[in-house]
This record gives sequence, C-alpha cells and structure tokens, in this order.
Amino acid sequence: MCQLLGMNANTPTDVMFSFAGLACRADEHKDGFGIGFFEERGLRHFIDHHGARSSPVAELVKHYPIKSLNVVAHIRKATQGRVALENTHPFVRELWGRYWVFAHNGDLKGFVPRLHGAFRPVGDTDSERAFCWLMQELDKAHADLPTIDELTCTLAELLPLPARHGTFNLLLSNGQALWAHGSTKLHSLERRHPFGAATLADEDLTVDFAARTQPGDRVAIVATEPLTAGEPWSAFAPGELRVFVDGECRLRRCG
Amino acid sequence: MCQLLGMNANTPTDVMFSFAGLACRADEHKDGFGIGFFEERGLRHFIDHHGARSSPVAELVKHYPIKSLNVVAHIRKATQGRVALENTHPFVRELWGRYWVFAHNGDLKGFVPRLHGAFRPVGDTDSERAFCWLMQELDKAHADLPTIDELTCTLAELLPLPARHGTFNLLLSNGQALWAHGSTKLHSLERRHPFGAATLADEDLTVDFAARTQPGDRVAIVATEPLTAGEPWSAFAPGELRVFVDGECRLRRCG
Repeated sequence: MCQLLGMNANTPTDVMFSFAGLACRADEHKDGFGIGFFEERGLRHFIDHHGARSSPVAELVKHYPIKSLNVVAHIRKATQGRVALENTHPFVRELWGRYWVFAHNGDLKGFVPRLHGAFRPVGDTDSERAFCWLMQELDKAHADLPTIDELTCTLAELLPLPARHGTFNLLLSNGQALWAHGSTKLHSLERRHPFGAATLADEDLTVDFAARTQPGDRVAIVATEPLTAGEPWSAFAPGELRVFVDGECRLRRCG
Repeated sequence: MCQLLGMNANTPTDVMFSFAGLACRADEHKDGFGIGFFEERGLRHFIDHHGARSSPVAELVKHYPIKSLNVVAHIRKATQGRVALENTHPFVRELWGRYWVFAHNGDLKGFVPRLHGAFRPVGDTDSERAFCWLMQELDKAHADLPTIDELTCTLAELLPLPARHGTFNLLLSNGQALWAHGSTKLHSLERRHPFGAATLADEDLTVDFAARTQPGDRVAIVATEPLTAGEPWSAFAPGELRVFVDGECRLRRCG
C-alpha cells in the first residue's frame, strides 16, 4: 500500500521529521517516492523512481530544511502502471495560474472518464488519469480561481465519482490549502501551542517542537497511518473530505 | 546575463561535467537555477532560488549521475520578475500528454500576448508569459502531438513574434527533441566517435569521454557560451533555430 503525507501550516515549516517517519516505512515501497513543496506560488517537486530508503533525492529532502506552508508527499508501491518516473506521484498541473499537486493511494477500477480538456496523462496510472479529470472538471466549474470554500464545494461534488470505482485516498494542494479525501485509510493531526515532544511510531526519533516553534504556530499533518505515538491522530470516515488552511482543519464534509 | 545549458543525446548521458562548467559561472548569477531531466516521458525538475554555487539542490545535481536523453538547465540573473521560486527557470507545462520544459535568456519588452488558452503564468516573468503563449499557439496549431519536423515548422513560424520584442535565446524540449533558438548568444557542440578529452573553459577540470562512451554514442550540447576550450563550438546566427534529435543537429532554420 502506498503511503501519503501532507502538511499544511500557518508559518513556513519543514517536514524533515515527518518525512523521516514516512521514509522508514519505505522498505516495502521501493517503487519510487515524490514530494512537492509550495513556497508562495512556486513549487519544488522532487521525484525519484528509486525508493525513499535508497534515493539520493530522498536524502536531500531529509537533510535540507525546506520550509513550506503546503506539502504533498507519496511513497509508491506500484499496483497499476509501470515503475517509471512518469508514474511517480505527486503529479503536477497548472490551472488558473496556480500549480496543483496531487497524490493518490488506492486503485480505481474502470474509471475511464472522457478527457476532452487541456489535461492529459503523461504516464499510465489510474491516479494521474483521475487527477487530469479532476483538473478538467474544476476548470469547467469555475472561470477563474475561486475561493477555498467554493473549491471545497466543487471537490465535494466531484470526488465521489471516481471514489465509486475503488479506493481513493488523496491529497491535493494549490499552495493555498490542503484538501484530503479519505476512502479507506487516512489520518490527520493538528499541532498547536503548547507544543510538546513527538516520537516517531516506527523509529527511535523524538523532536521537541516546543523548542522550534512560536506560540501562534499551527501545523496540520495528514498521513495514511499515524506517524507518531501518543498524539491525537484522527481517522477519516469513508468518503470524508477535510480542507486544511493555515494549519487547521477548516471544514469536514462526509461523503 | 543568464546562462543556458541544454543536452540532447542518443544514449542516456549525464550532464555533471557540463553542469559543473555552468555552475562555476554562477558567481554573478545568484538568483536561482533550475534543471529538467527527461527520463522517457517522465521529468525530474530541480529548481532553487539559491544560486548554483551554494544550493544543496545544485550539489545533488553535480554529484548524482542522472542519465537522460534531453536536459534543459538555466542559471538565473534576475532582470524581470522578483527573485522567487515561481520565477525560476526552466518552466514546465503538459501538452498532448507530454511534459514541455522551457528556459529563456534575455528580455522581452512589451510582449503581452492575449492568453485565452489553458496556459497561464504562475510567476511574473516575461519568460514564463512567452512560454505560455508558445504552448497555447502550439496547441492551436495541432490537434495532437505532431512529428518533430512539424513541430519545428510551427516553432519557426512562432518564435520570430516574441523575438521582435527583445532578446530571445531559448531552449525547449518535450523529451523527444531539443529545440534551441538563438537571438544574441547561443552555441552548440556535437560530440561523437572518436571521443577525446575536454577541458572546462573556466575551471581546471578535464574529462576523457573516450573512456566513458561507446563508438555509436552521440551527444549535442547547447550553451550560452562555449563551456570547453579546444572543441568546435558553433555560434547561432541571430534568429537561428536548431533542432537536436538523437544527439545531432537535424535541422537549422535561420530567421
């Protein structure tokens, strides 16, 4: 099963700790990894079809403190599509002068929508096809970049369609917000003042966030499985959509 | 002045040697760098708004032998647009299920075409605006991915329009070919059997390509200035378009 990791914060924050937690689960996920960091409107997009345990690109991500408000990461276990760079999540497209980053965990059987718009898959995964369809439908629904709440409404209408075809845990960000849709397995956590220490569930690594944060800082983390022990991770209901803005969950919509 | 570097080869080839040559010119180019590597249809896209001398991302590129048939790189000296990640070349868009990578050296004064299509700039550079216009016009000219020769004809018609507005040295690739357009300063070089040794023009670094290549290998390099001493670099005429396929120049069109 692939692993998803998303972050949304109200102050530029690095994800080295959480990414280390994700990467240490990479033993069974040797089919590539990817991560997208927004910095204002700009995007850094690192992908590698080597696994996150062995990739020099993953080493860079683990040790270079890239600070971002919105991050989408994915460690791949290929189920559909060849192991190839063009099939590595997250995928990126531009719409309304914003980059959009998408990562998916799950399989969609027989979801072959008509793609008549400006978005076509480069690789051969069901995930990228669903992303292109989503971009096409967003583009049809709004003439220009809508508000986060309007986008959330449109996404809440669109996401059940592919979700009927299988498992559709996903992360989507345009640098303003992080949308997370749970189908079978997704969890989120919000960290805020007073910050404590957190210990990775799988590895002997503890970070004291209190020493590295200000009282007003807020960070939300979304991950396939809880990454830390002893923190209040909240499981998504099947079909639930959560949107994170400025480091907290602004809205939950159950499907 | 920004520096461009492009590579097109008939066998997967790394650009560590040429990138080292480019990066050592980066003292006066502290406003970011970027590089895109095609691997089949997939693309690795590394950008940083730190200069190529100091960036950890550049260090990775210099030491991780990423092998590719088509590479587009750029070291930025900001003339238009803020120093920000979204203004860092090369820019990427998807068209006809292929990624397109574009880097530009020069200024375009007053080139503000109407962008009514599916491609909009994320940043505020004249370069990204020209790239979006180019993608829009290619999309209008062809219903689906045309041949390299058809694309070259269309590009030869389109490129003079922005070029009238200033300096338009550029590199463009979709992973099948590398198009290079010279306006004021661009050079290319083809290396093939029998390979010799090459020495960087600016740094005391020599590589013996004979030891690292097979007789059938061919590599074309495009750069703002010749990167090596003692090799037959060929200067572009003003307005000249060259297209490189399988490591050699397939066509030259003078503007």
